[in-house]
Amino acid sequence: MELFDRLISGDRRAAARIISLIENDEPEGKEVIKLLHRHTGRAHIIGITGAPGAGKSTLVAAVTRELRERGKTIGIVAIDPTSPFTGGALLGDRIRMQDLATDKDVFIRSMGTRGSLGGVARATNDAINVLDAFGKDIVIVETVGAGQTEVDIVKFAHTSVVVTMPGGGDEIQAIKAGILEIGDIFVVNKADREDSSRTMAELMMMLELSERPEGAWDPPVLKTIATSSEGIPQLVDCLLAHYQYLRENKLLEQKEKERVVAEMLEIINQQVGQAVHRLLREDGYMTDLLHKMVDTREIDPHTGARLIIQHLLQNPPNNDLQRTISNGQ
Amino acid sequence: MELFDRLISGDRRAAARIISLIENDEPEGKEVIKLLHRHTGRAHIIGITGAPGAGKSTLVAAVTRELRERGKTIGIVAIDPTSPFTGGALLGDRIRMQDLATDKDVFIRSMGTRGSLGGVARATNDAINVLDAFGKDIVIVETVGAGQTEVDIVKFAHTSVVVTMPGGGDEIQAIKAGILEIGDIFVVNKADREDSSRTMAELMMMLELSERPEGAWDPPVLKTIATSSEGIPQLVDCLLAHYQYLRENKLLEQKEKERVVAEMLEIINQQVGQAVHRLLREDGYMTDLLHKMVDTREIDPHTGARLIIQHLLQNPPNNDLQRTISNGQ
Repeated sequence: MELFDRLISGDRRAAARIISLIENDEPEGKEVIKLLHRHTGRAHIIGITGAPGAGKSTLVAAVTRELRERGKTIGIVAIDPTSPFTGGALLGDRIRMQDLATDKDVFIRSMGTRGSLGGVARATNDAINVLDAFGKDIVIVETVGAGQTEVDIVKFAHTSVVVTMPGGGDEIQAIKAGILEIGDIFVVNKADREDSSRTMAELMMMLELSERPEGAWDPPVLKTIATSSEGIPQLVDCLLAHYQYLRENKLLEQKEKERVVAEMLEIINQQVGQAVHRLLREDGYMTDLLHKMVDTREIDPHTGARLIIQHLLQNPPNNDLQRTISNGQ
Repeated sequence: MELFDRLISGDRRAAARIISLIENDEPEGKEVIKLLHRHTGRAHIIGITGAPGAGKSTLVAAVTRELRERGKTIGIVAIDPTSPFTGGALLGDRIRMQDLATDKDVFIRSMGTRGSLGGVARATNDAINVLDAFGKDIVIVETVGAGQTEVDIVKFAHTSVVVTMPGGGDEIQAIKAGILEIGDIFVVNKADREDSSRTMAELMMMLELSERPEGAWDPPVLKTIATSSEGIPQLVDCLLAHYQYLRENKLLEQKEKERVVAEMLEIINQQVGQAVHRLLREDGYMTDLLHKMVDTREIDPHTGARLIIQHLLQNPPNNDLQRTISNGQ
């Protein structure tokens, strides 16, 4: 396949084109994704998350510059709506990042966050795989750490970084709920602000309270000032040390397997979603079912879900899910 | 069923117990949900979302007090990790809301945000239905508007409120990406801060740019100071006017149907997730499949997803998905 060959030979425009196909859910994108799977599994996948305003994008830029100095090639996938990579931030941020945009060993891609039917996580995973197969040593995914989907994406990275900043409790509270468990490295950015030591102390206390098995990775808490690159070399040391730790303890394969399971679930969910939405457009069955669910309240959603699965299975294949099912029977 | 009878007769402890059963994904919870479906469809479901720090919880509390004065009974479902209802906020916030906690016509329930396998959206929808069947006139759902799952939950409310506050662009940017489309009412809270007029103007400009069909609801932009209840009566007027608009234009049924479709998809997704995770624990098939996907890279995730569906369909029923499928064949 031409697009695939061009990707493997290092054609940036092919990489961009493939990710667009994936985002738009074109069948051609899926074909490329299948082909390139053999070429994946070489990149170190780093997820970076945190509340809006914590300075994630500036941190990603600073980390990228440091990694470039160490000779690494980088792919960046931004699914943070407030990220300058995604187009959300102020003009100044974007100008400050122009050096990255013109470096041929840095590939930056933003992903839409509006995808319906759970498509964001699936498309992000596919984009990571494209950049992995494209030969990037390190793929960084930037998300806002407030949503379940976004947390899930970072959770399945090899190394998850949670970014916070000095502040009055809210930031820490936001971290507390759910993402404390997923962080391999914690960063207090904007460390020149007052209260940074208190925020560090609070974070370390929370981490000490959380139970970890004997011999497990002990998540470090680092201070950075991303705008002046302070603390960035130490952060990069930690990122690489964590990857080394995963490799040495045979945990990388385990992480990869968890990620692949999550990917498959996303794919299945998306196909089911598409099948149901196609039913809604094409099929009188759904009109009747929804009438009984909403107008007369005879059928509850749990029963409705069961009926839909049965209906999809019993009716001739004219969509992805049914093709999926019938292909191998 | 005793628990169901107690709910319908107005027993608060039964309502709390049922929601706990749902959260823990107990089969008994599902049974009650099926029974109570006939008793739903009467409440006005209001979704309130926005960035952390915008003052959503204080706004929810103020709106609840105003609605109580107008004789309405209220259910609140908080899935915002920074909400005082969920336990995330500072002690002061929680003390300020104690009057609500002791009002027998206000039922407050927080939902965990850690649920895996897409369970948060499903559990939230079920909790809304419990409070609807419990007889609450209005059910308010509070979420943080940064994640896909959370936006989806609010999207399927009858009336969606997007809360922002005066500020330097970030808040507006965060709104821009995805939730501008879903808001039926926009609120600039903390309107005593400087810049509130500029934020109002920016919001109104963005709304004017977005295309809406002729005769469609024109989303108002309101100023509030939730801490002193300023602007709250006007907001409540708008909330009730929007519900009236939906009813008069026969749009309520349409919204209900969209919500029920989303609910069914959540249920299906969760069952597929559970089935796959059970396979992982019980079945040598998965060990082999994952070996071929990660270690040798022979099988890509799209093919893996197809193989898993086929495997689930071809093997004897010992989980929810398979029971679902085989029950009706």
